[in-house]
Amino acid sequence: MTLDALLGRIEPVDADAGRAAGRALDAKTKPRGSLGELEALACRIAAIRGTPLPGRLQAALVLAAGDHGYARRGVSAYPQEVTAQMLAAFAAGGAAIDVLARERGLRLVVVDAGVAEPFDDPAIRAVRLGGGTADATEGPAMTREQAVAGILAGAGIAEELCAEGFGIVATGDMGIGNTTAAAALSALLLPAEPEAVCGRGTGVDDEGLARKVEAVRAALRVNEPDAGDPVGVLAAVGGFELAILTGVCLGAAAVRAVVLLDGFVTGAAALVAARLAPPASERMVASHRSPEPGHALVLADLGLRPLLDLDLRLGEGSGAALALPLLTAALAILADMATFESAGVTDAGA
Amino acid sequence: MTLDALLGRIEPVDADAGRAAGRALDAKTKPRGSLGELEALACRIAAIRGTPLPGRLQAALVLAAGDHGYARRGVSAYPQEVTAQMLAAFAAGGAAIDVLARERGLRLVVVDAGVAEPFDDPAIRAVRLGGGTADATEGPAMTREQAVAGILAGAGIAEELCAEGFGIVATGDMGIGNTTAAAALSALLLPAEPEAVCGRGTGVDDEGLARKVEAVRAALRVNEPDAGDPVGVLAAVGGFELAILTGVCLGAAAVRAVVLLDGFVTGAAALVAARLAPPASERMVASHRSPEPGHALVLADLGLRPLLDLDLRLGEGSGAALALPLLTAALAILADMATFESAGVTDAGA
Repeated sequence: MTLDALLGRIEPVDADAGRAAGRALDAKTKPRGSLGELEALACRIAAIRGTPLPGRLQAALVLAAGDHGYARRGVSAYPQEVTAQMLAAFAAGGAAIDVLARERGLRLVVVDAGVAEPFDDPAIRAVRLGGGTADATEGPAMTREQAVAGILAGAGIAEELCAEGFGIVATGDMGIGNTTAAAALSALLLPAEPEAVCGRGTGVDDEGLARKVEAVRAALRVNEPDAGDPVGVLAAVGGFELAILTGVCLGAAAVRAVVLLDGFVTGAAALVAARLAPPASERMVASHRSPEPGHALVLADLGLRPLLDLDLRLGEGSGAALALPLLTAALAILADMATFESAGVTDAGA
Repeated sequence: MTLDALLGRIEPVDADAGRAAGRALDAKTKPRGSLGELEALACRIAAIRGTPLPGRLQAALVLAAGDHGYARRGVSAYPQEVTAQMLAAFAAGGAAIDVLARERGLRLVVVDAGVAEPFDDPAIRAVRLGGGTADATEGPAMTREQAVAGILAGAGIAEELCAEGFGIVATGDMGIGNTTAAAALSALLLPAEPEAVCGRGTGVDDEGLARKVEAVRAALRVNEPDAGDPVGVLAAVGGFELAILTGVCLGAAAVRAVVLLDGFVTGAAALVAARLAPPASERMVASHRSPEPGHALVLADLGLRPLLDLDLRLGEGSGAALALPLLTAALAILADMATFESAGVTDAGA
């Protein structure tokens, strides 16, 4: 499959199905609209799936990990080796996302998109685009070919999961230095000033934050990518896991799955996807708003209202896993609630 | 049991256990504090349960229903008969809370606290304090004896559930006119102006809202209850389901259960409970913030920060059911996540 072929398959959602779901909710034994955002979510999922009654949906989470040349610039509170150590932790089943995925019945697919040292474990899917990106403050993070290969590989994983029957595909990320890559992508694509999109990530101090802003500035200055060429932007200042996650968004959108986003890094990948195929954003659901300042800007650009606001800044798809029960609840309400008529309850009317 | 005996059993939470849970979370393989409010929630539950490792907790929801003399004042979008019809809907299993409780594995206990006409069904627990309250705009809604009997009955139900092994007791309400009762209670106990605590409930129009404010004003003027006497306030302007729910909060707090609140009506009952026994509020968790203007004021008074903000205004305990997975996730993180040491991950330090 070529990238153009993938993008050509992404269509606008079925607004009629969303409206029909809204009418079905209005007939249920509750005051109209009284379940607030949960009703809006049910209608959104109906429109995404192209049916007023999407039924129950199973969810899978693609957690992509990669290393970053940015890490050499002192942009993170943690050393680069932690990316590979966390892959081992995911494989061992003791990381936060392992716990949450088990709790939620969420299928977890961990992808090594290009950690510095290969980590060989049957629990990790290797789609290595390299051994960590190049330092984007000195030249492109990766080649255009690597970016395209990552997008197509991510799309393939998403389509494979949907073919297995998953109707919700969540995204998650791991990678020391990747909020710097996400900030650089956001700064170019929104566009926004580097200061407006750089935050403390997993806990960098004031000096680290200043280095982060400077790294983003340098990456933009050195590479001068064309904001109208999202693949070029991704290659110049992005990351391997961001390429995979962009592809996951596009592949899931192509087969009408619900794309459940996590925080800022997955949001930046979603932004690249939406710039490549604007209707893709209609198939996304924002699980939460993180304290990263760039995240709110990205969500606003994508037209997404986050379900949770709990000061989450872990990544790994943890926010997506935490929000997932709201999606299943919205679907259950749509599928199982009685109507005023069937329950014999007096309706106050519209 | 007397009310004084019940109140005397409600103790402050174990702050040491909460701090120990915080230290345990700091050792887990994630940047410190990166799970934000979820970590604060885990620590709060540890403090409530009096142990750094509360384990998994099962949850039950007490949904109390009652009718209100206020309904005669045209304060609701729905006629009074809907309260009894909804009891039938709960019993039949097709109401929103039935669907959500099944989805969540939440034990649902529906209590008839005093609907106008008795509804005889094995699925409904009858603790009838009367056949709807008197019109509080003309005199007290109920006698002091009824209020005390309701509190003690609610406490008994909560203690019974905890003895069965439930560690989380959620509250839910149903009753046409009950946001007016909740507004009157809040206006007296916060205190606040009636306009500041009256909202549209399940969807009343401008004229209905004006009638609601006037009903609250009249109830306060006619009864002149002493705000320092919470039982007197409850009897004068409250409701039967509010008395039961006040008791549920107190009974659950007395046995160190987590009290999971729903929206404005359950919040008003929690406020009465906290006025009777201030440490009770330390054992409460606010599931969401509703659009009722009085709800934010009540939560602020109780010192509670809501987990969700989804424009929910249904009641029935629906918000509590929607937030419950966040509690189970917080407990799972505390119980099951690996530490930096056990996972062999480099820690960035405090």
